[in-house]
Amino acid sequence: MTSSSDTAASPLPQQSSNVEWHGMKIDKTLRATSNGQKPCVLWFTGLSGAGKSTIADKLEQKLYQAGKRTYLLDGDNVRHGLNRDLGFSDDDRVENIRRIAEMSRLFVDAGLIVLVSFISPFRAEREMARALMEDGEFIEIYVDTPLTVCEERDPKGLYKKARAGEIKQFTGIDSAYEPPQDPEVVLKADRHGPDELADQIIGFLEERSYMMQWR
Amino acid sequence: MTSSSDTAASPLPQQSSNVEWHGMKIDKTLRATSNGQKPCVLWFTGLSGAGKSTIADKLEQKLYQAGKRTYLLDGDNVRHGLNRDLGFSDDDRVENIRRIAEMSRLFVDAGLIVLVSFISPFRAEREMARALMEDGEFIEIYVDTPLTVCEERDPKGLYKKARAGEIKQFTGIDSAYEPPQDPEVVLKADRHGPDELADQIIGFLEERSYMMQWR
Repeated sequence: MTSSSDTAASPLPQQSSNVEWHGMKIDKTLRATSNGQKPCVLWFTGLSGAGKSTIADKLEQKLYQAGKRTYLLDGDNVRHGLNRDLGFSDDDRVENIRRIAEMSRLFVDAGLIVLVSFISPFRAEREMARALMEDGEFIEIYVDTPLTVCEERDPKGLYKKARAGEIKQFTGIDSAYEPPQDPEVVLKADRHGPDELADQIIGFLEERSYMMQWR
Repeated sequence: MTSSSDTAASPLPQQSSNVEWHGMKIDKTLRATSNGQKPCVLWFTGLSGAGKSTIADKLEQKLYQAGKRTYLLDGDNVRHGLNRDLGFSDDDRVENIRRIAEMSRLFVDAGLIVLVSFISPFRAEREMARALMEDGEFIEIYVDTPLTVCEERDPKGLYKKARAGEIKQFTGIDSAYEPPQDPEVVLKADRHGPDELADQIIGFLEERSYMMQWR
């Protein structure tokens, strides 16, 4: 009988030691086969109001109808739970994205197609997330909606508050958004509706065999 | 079109505000139906060396063979990733279990049967995890192996180190283990093998309709 997987204590108080990677018998490949899909992260990035979550919701509905196993991580279900201890300081934003990336990795390991919907404005943090995954598992989806369109939509009134100085360091106003340089998918969300854009992603996934029976 | 789900910034720098729970169209009930199971957390608690991970591995194999969708969280895949920033101080241990519980909640929301294998020695932290779940979603499994047996097994040599004073605050030696008072399942892992104990859990899950087609 092997040991329990947690260690009761460590001789090095601030470092994870006495921990060995545990060889799980049921692995990602078996789960992927069961689910008839290649697990991956669909990482939606773009300005506030660009349409990320609307498109992600629509896509998830289509994937569900195709019998695929998915999960959606967004600012709301994550910020209310796992990351409720984090605020919006620079350090906390970095930690927020780090945990989301690590969680995505576990969901991919669990055999799911994970939809991640966050502004994630900085290239470095998206590259960090990509680096955690295996080749082909990270699909960066740039929801490319011009700032003027996002600001006109302003669904939560946040741009208005940012312009009035009530919110500081708002992405696109007084904090930078760094567009992806080589995203797997670019969506022109000012020209097409969410349904059509979700189909565009489905096309990508089909073409690259993410949705086929896979082993 | 609704807004993006993340907020770009907050007027309150250290608190999650401007965040609303996002109504996802594909929900836990739909996922549970697809998977033919009632999602839940199987929370294994017990001393180091009690047999938690061995039993969890065996159980996961049986669930996989029954066509169920599972995931296993243990000290190794969590400590190497999401919680790699945490050590073994009291505060870090509390935060370790909090994140595991929050993550479990997301995996349950994703429709999976989640196996969680940690010593988790304190009642308060297990109750915290239970409180995050809906009624019937948290199944506490006490792997009840006497300390003398665990110490005799000592698969990683940790008890020997703890007795020699090389590891401080080791559960069962110089740090308390608080047995569950009313666990859903008690496993006598000094009297039965992992295969038989995994079947005992399967029996519980079948009896309570966790494994049946469920809606």
